[in-house]
Amino acid sequence: MTKWVYGFGGGSAEGRSEMRELLGGKGANLAEMSNLGLPVPPGFTITTEVCTAFYDNDRNYPADLNDEVETALKAVENLVGRKFGNVADPLLVSVRSGARASMPGMMDTVLNLGLNDDTVEGLAAVSGDRRFAYDSYRRFIQMYGDVVLGVEHYNFEEILEIHKEDKGYVLDTEMSADDWQEIVEGFKAKVAEELGRPFPQDPREQLWGAIGAVFGSWMNARANTYRRLHNIPASWGTAVNVQAMVFGNMGNECATGVCFSRNPSTGENRFYGEYLINAQGEDVVAGIRTPAPLTKIEREESGSDLLSMEEAMPAVFADLVAVRDKLEAHYRDMQDMEFTVESNRLYMLQTRSGKRTAKAALRIAVEMCDDGVISRDDALMRVDPAQLDQMLHPTLDPDAEKQVIGMGLPASPGAASGQIVFSAEVAEDWAHNKGRKVVLVRIETSPEDIAGMHAAEGILTARGGMTSHAAVVARGMGKPCVCGAGAIKIDYRGGTMNAGGVMLKEGDVITIDGGTGEVMLGEVATLKPDLSGDFSQLMEWADGVRRLKVRTNAETPEDAETARGFGAEGIGLCRTEHMFFDPARIISMREMILAETEAGRRVALAKLLPYQRQDFIDLFRIMKGLPVTIRLLDPPLHEFLPHGDNEIAEVAKAADVSESIVRRRLLDLAESNPMLGHRGCRLGISYPEIYEMQARAIFEAAIEVSKAGGDQVIPEIMIPLVVGKKELEILKAAIVKVASEVEAEQSAKLTYLVGTMIELPRAALRAGDIAEEAEFFSFGTNDLTQTTFGLSRDDASHFLDTYIAKDIFAGDPFVSLDQEGVGELIALAAERGRKTRPDIKLGICGEHGGDPSSIAFCEAQGLDYVSCSPYRVPIARLAAAQAALKK
Amino acid sequence: MTKWVYGFGGGSAEGRSEMRELLGGKGANLAEMSNLGLPVPPGFTITTEVCTAFYDNDRNYPADLNDEVETALKAVENLVGRKFGNVADPLLVSVRSGARASMPGMMDTVLNLGLNDDTVEGLAAVSGDRRFAYDSYRRFIQMYGDVVLGVEHYNFEEILEIHKEDKGYVLDTEMSADDWQEIVEGFKAKVAEELGRPFPQDPREQLWGAIGAVFGSWMNARANTYRRLHNIPASWGTAVNVQAMVFGNMGNECATGVCFSRNPSTGENRFYGEYLINAQGEDVVAGIRTPAPLTKIEREESGSDLLSMEEAMPAVFADLVAVRDKLEAHYRDMQDMEFTVESNRLYMLQTRSGKRTAKAALRIAVEMCDDGVISRDDALMRVDPAQLDQMLHPTLDPDAEKQVIGMGLPASPGAASGQIVFSAEVAEDWAHNKGRKVVLVRIETSPEDIAGMHAAEGILTARGGMTSHAAVVARGMGKPCVCGAGAIKIDYRGGTMNAGGVMLKEGDVITIDGGTGEVMLGEVATLKPDLSGDFSQLMEWADGVRRLKVRTNAETPEDAETARGFGAEGIGLCRTEHMFFDPARIISMREMILAETEAGRRVALAKLLPYQRQDFIDLFRIMKGLPVTIRLLDPPLHEFLPHGDNEIAEVAKAADVSESIVRRRLLDLAESNPMLGHRGCRLGISYPEIYEMQARAIFEAAIEVSKAGGDQVIPEIMIPLVVGKKELEILKAAIVKVASEVEAEQSAKLTYLVGTMIELPRAALRAGDIAEEAEFFSFGTNDLTQTTFGLSRDDASHFLDTYIAKDIFAGDPFVSLDQEGVGELIALAAERGRKTRPDIKLGICGEHGGDPSSIAFCEAQGLDYVSCSPYRVPIARLAAAQAALKK
Repeated sequence: MTKWVYGFGGGSAEGRSEMRELLGGKGANLAEMSNLGLPVPPGFTITTEVCTAFYDNDRNYPADLNDEVETALKAVENLVGRKFGNVADPLLVSVRSGARASMPGMMDTVLNLGLNDDTVEGLAAVSGDRRFAYDSYRRFIQMYGDVVLGVEHYNFEEILEIHKEDKGYVLDTEMSADDWQEIVEGFKAKVAEELGRPFPQDPREQLWGAIGAVFGSWMNARANTYRRLHNIPASWGTAVNVQAMVFGNMGNECATGVCFSRNPSTGENRFYGEYLINAQGEDVVAGIRTPAPLTKIEREESGSDLLSMEEAMPAVFADLVAVRDKLEAHYRDMQDMEFTVESNRLYMLQTRSGKRTAKAALRIAVEMCDDGVISRDDALMRVDPAQLDQMLHPTLDPDAEKQVIGMGLPASPGAASGQIVFSAEVAEDWAHNKGRKVVLVRIETSPEDIAGMHAAEGILTARGGMTSHAAVVARGMGKPCVCGAGAIKIDYRGGTMNAGGVMLKEGDVITIDGGTGEVMLGEVATLKPDLSGDFSQLMEWADGVRRLKVRTNAETPEDAETARGFGAEGIGLCRTEHMFFDPARIISMREMILAETEAGRRVALAKLLPYQRQDFIDLFRIMKGLPVTIRLLDPPLHEFLPHGDNEIAEVAKAADVSESIVRRRLLDLAESNPMLGHRGCRLGISYPEIYEMQARAIFEAAIEVSKAGGDQVIPEIMIPLVVGKKELEILKAAIVKVASEVEAEQSAKLTYLVGTMIELPRAALRAGDIAEEAEFFSFGTNDLTQTTFGLSRDDASHFLDTYIAKDIFAGDPFVSLDQEGVGELIALAAERGRKTRPDIKLGICGEHGGDPSSIAFCEAQGLDYVSCSPYRVPIARLAAAQAALKK
Repeated sequence: MTKWVYGFGGGSAEGRSEMRELLGGKGANLAEMSNLGLPVPPGFTITTEVCTAFYDNDRNYPADLNDEVETALKAVENLVGRKFGNVADPLLVSVRSGARASMPGMMDTVLNLGLNDDTVEGLAAVSGDRRFAYDSYRRFIQMYGDVVLGVEHYNFEEILEIHKEDKGYVLDTEMSADDWQEIVEGFKAKVAEELGRPFPQDPREQLWGAIGAVFGSWMNARANTYRRLHNIPASWGTAVNVQAMVFGNMGNECATGVCFSRNPSTGENRFYGEYLINAQGEDVVAGIRTPAPLTKIEREESGSDLLSMEEAMPAVFADLVAVRDKLEAHYRDMQDMEFTVESNRLYMLQTRSGKRTAKAALRIAVEMCDDGVISRDDALMRVDPAQLDQMLHPTLDPDAEKQVIGMGLPASPGAASGQIVFSAEVAEDWAHNKGRKVVLVRIETSPEDIAGMHAAEGILTARGGMTSHAAVVARGMGKPCVCGAGAIKIDYRGGTMNAGGVMLKEGDVITIDGGTGEVMLGEVATLKPDLSGDFSQLMEWADGVRRLKVRTNAETPEDAETARGFGAEGIGLCRTEHMFFDPARIISMREMILAETEAGRRVALAKLLPYQRQDFIDLFRIMKGLPVTIRLLDPPLHEFLPHGDNEIAEVAKAADVSESIVRRRLLDLAESNPMLGHRGCRLGISYPEIYEMQARAIFEAAIEVSKAGGDQVIPEIMIPLVVGKKELEILKAAIVKVASEVEAEQSAKLTYLVGTMIELPRAALRAGDIAEEAEFFSFGTNDLTQTTFGLSRDDASHFLDTYIAKDIFAGDPFVSLDQEGVGELIALAAERGRKTRPDIKLGICGEHGGDPSSIAFCEAQGLDYVSCSPYRVPIARLAAAQAALKK
């Protein structure tokens, strides 16, 4: 027979902390604290299985539930020495929901249940405080009326406000026992008026009403939405906790508070919290009174004039410290606890693992490990990799004053200040030639702005979402970026921006916080990231356990250096096209595109060769023998041509052709769907000379670096956008030919790999054939996601929010890999590729390479490495370690 | 031990016609004819396995080949009674290649091999014709020099021309024996000069040289290209046929000719062919002399003044007729034969199945079946479905005069004449209001031109390939279309077009032939298609054996009627968006798009509802209870908005909003990659009211048609572009709700299906889940191909030709389904869908539904139906029958 109810209290419990699934988080920890002998008011938990049975059985309870509740209630009565509904000395209880995972949107709490017109008098008599009794009763009616009976809160607020006005009171504390009694009458009348029946007086009816409200709220709209968004199955159900009331509001020997076993902000191993004398829990939350610090040192440090608990209630405080020590030692993690003091006696109402900042998480994990409380593996699992991003960028000084003049999306973390510039050219000019710090402000950005974005301290755009060009590129660069700040009106021609009525012009200083989306006037002080100490310690441990290598996506020496600093073990994706946007090179690039013949293209490419060679020399030197994967030219050629009239004229002049030729070429190259167009290896097939030049640049650079005494360079040349084996066969042959030529010219021997991106569904399907040619695969999950979903990343913003809101997508598939769809193609390609070539090297590049859940997927698939933008390298290192540990 | 050489002649052979793989087509049929006792000059076939061994063994022949050739040669010598190389009475031979499939690009033929300075005199003596002997010798040097020794043809031509000039001759017939002897000397000197060694005099050296040239040509560039394009594996190899020479040029009792057992143009069961007296085979091909008709009746019908063979050589002709009868009865198919008459004796040199027109193919198949020669199944297999397209459209009268003024791509078959119009609006106006026949001439077309394309007799565009908008839409409509006629310059403003120097203006008449790509001045007479008789007979047989249903893609009553006429069994794809481009509707459509609120959209949609309802009423009536699959709105909304300044102004005025609102909406809706954008069910999710209106129109129409006494309509409502189950779940619920409302309003009961397109890789992967909601799948192979390949159909023309030329693609994947990639996704989706819902209805729509090889794939996958454009319905019916037979 199923057991539906689990009692706790009196130094023992029927449950344990491991029974979280059955008892919910709160119930399991209440049981655990009881078992530990901690002072927990007795009570019982109605299990999550009752919730499931309730919904499976058309909202009816299991037949024997009533008996089990009665038995459990009797046990509580015996422990407390009061009887539920007893008029002389009533047992009052709280009723709280408690799901496996904390879940907003559900009914939370009803306190003081069991009060009615009779028992309130008993409470008055026993407590000796009639005002307290009636205050408690009116609180009960208010809470129960709102959350159980559905009489909205404002109905009660109104009655209370009118009463206070009539009496000329300002504060609730001015209310007398009689006042509260009058309020109770008013509340009861209101409930009767709203519902057409009186407020329930029978405590059992009250209890079942509250239990029913908790179970009912499991399926309300908000809870359903929350569950969908957080992938919580409805079948989990919620538990209900019924617990004897203790009162923190029965006078000055009473109190209530919340505390953390360590500082949740800094991680410092020092008891931390706040409390209120003579208050009920909800008062702390409501913020009507300012809570006092828990410890003396906190009071001193904060300069508070409120007496700390350590000073005001030293004995009870000592008990609390003992509880803190016991709980932390027991759970081996920083605890977030709630307590109440009734007449100088401490009661524990809740404990759970405390939320913490990244900094605190790191410090706690490392210190607990150093103290031998937890293992290194445990320490690694304790830090959320995504949180690390907070640590890697400058942050606003929390003490600095700031005037927020606009808000956008927090697109790329970090804070930056600088002078406003409205074009990439000015950004470069001011930054490089005048040594100024600038913030690039654009309506939106395009690939031509890359150099300007690099030169700027941060980027602000008026348009675009979290996956807009600005956002993606800025994250890749680790530049702070606020995007989609729609209320900021930018006038390029006037050289001004209007932010919330503040008119700013080029050269004015602003500060942006890419972690919050705030735009601020003037320079706001920032703090530099500190990556030594706990951070580097944890990273070292992570490196000790992870199997996946972590590379970076980088094409500039700056990015490569940054990534090395963050621990990257090579370059997994060097996008060579980014190298052509430099003003000195774009001219030759355009000359190449405008050429009518292969010979003409070769002339232009010959001018690009020295630049490309130097690019690779720089990268190879920085990477000191680590692998460098270079993707040959990928974007469609029209991306390199200008579109405005003036620019067309300039280009025509520079290339010494007529404007009409430029315009005709633009028209020739125009595409309806550039993402699915003439790009990737399709360019290499159409214009073999482009890839030949790039291959030559790579090989010449490799030889030069090796000859100059550097580590031997083993470049990995990557062909993008293949749909099958044949393209690779043709292009690989051309690359091998160039390699032989360079070897002969330079009398040197080259070692290199030729591989491919798997970024189209067909390539994944044909991976078995492709592996006959490819020495490695790199999963290009950005494009693979675009094509598998038929979803353009640039256009998805039109409906992505709707899709997430309607639970069609669990999240943005460009952020976290779609394991069910795209993931199946990756798994299949890995399997087929390995079947053909057992030692094929497999990696992933693209945004997903820095996303923890996607990294876990890569570990499960046994890939060799992930590659991500430099600022995500530490995240990937930790995520890879966690994935290895989970495996 | 492998047998390398197979002899034939003298009434028997070592080979048979079934040994085509080993002996090649020519060798197998020579053997077969020998076995049949037909007069075949004796010879032997060196097998294709020698070719394979030759290449496998670094271009060396098998050790025992020489002995086998000698033995076979001796057998030929014995049969002929002459010896190879014998000076007094030499055996001469021909050497011909013969692969399994006819293959241009390879060495074809060397005749008269065995002649040298000595044997030529023997030939002169034996034949009594010295001129003939030296003419034969010079022909041999010329042919052998060119194809075996690589001395180019012009070298010989030059010597002959100079000689004739010197002598003052015009015709070769003026050349005497001495002249030819002089020429022989000149030819030999030229060969020695070019090669640095004399022309080979040893007959065995000549023979092995020719054999080596045939095998060598198997791997030359042209042959390699041809094989790649036609998917012929290199491993097949070619055979070499060595055969005793017979001479059709030894005087007036000699002749040579080609003939067909039935008329290859009309299919009529009448002997047909042409011949030349006193000539060698190459003379017929060279076209120097005009061949004469074979039969008397042919001569009479053609009014030829050349005596027919029937009249000139009645006895030999009677022999040939007997051979014809024997071969057709034996092969049970129309034969294409080559023969030579030497001194009134008939020799057969070749027989094979004859190429034929569609009309002939049909007639021959039906008549042979009626005569009991072949079975119905054989008859069905004898007609190439793709050929049928020729039959379905008007064709140019072959007797009509025509002045071609331009050429484009043959984008959609059929011939059409009409007055030139340069805009869709004028096309509609002239056609509908003035009853004129027009040809729509555009630089390129867009969806807004659909109505004008419908109104026109044919379409001509200056830009775009075989899969351009104009081409695809015209094929769908069955309209003749010539596209990409780049040399035609169109001036919209001036209302003129310049075609090859001919300047035409609006209203001038042209004729286009969409089967050839020709553009002609004025009206050229056309012939109407005749679909009765053999055509309808074969179709009836096809319907008797096929399992796959054939539906059509249609949204207009015209197309639906056409398709029914062609035998469509329902509509598989009704693209509702095409219904909104009508001028009366586009206004409301744009009003809907410009509305700021759902309420505003609903107002506009209410105006569209009656139109949509009437659309469906029309289609349901035409389809008389057959299934109709309706795809809800699919394209991105910006496709319905105009882009030119004038049109923007018009739309703003019509919608009573400011131009800036139209422009802003245009900007809002603009997409980088519309193919991967906010379209398909994504619109239904964002704007549920659109699909609700469409569902209502469908349901109201179904009830109206059923109530009016028509057959019961069971509409199949199709949701496009899903990526998983959830979208379908949401949208199906909305459709079911509308159905219930309509049922309640009309007091009627609806029967309908709700299903989905599987047109994205993710949908194919998630088909198992999707089938929980979907009652049918329709594979949208156009989009599935685009996304699987990451290849935009609109942009593919930039490199598709290169990809095909380089053998990366076997063909255009938008024409013939890519079975290796896209096909795997279809197979997987079918399997997963059926696992969830065993009776799920599966079909395919999109261009591939009318492609025979794709239809065979659909049959193999056990799909329920294919759907194609109306004019491809007969093709699909036959292809489906063939697929069923092959299975």
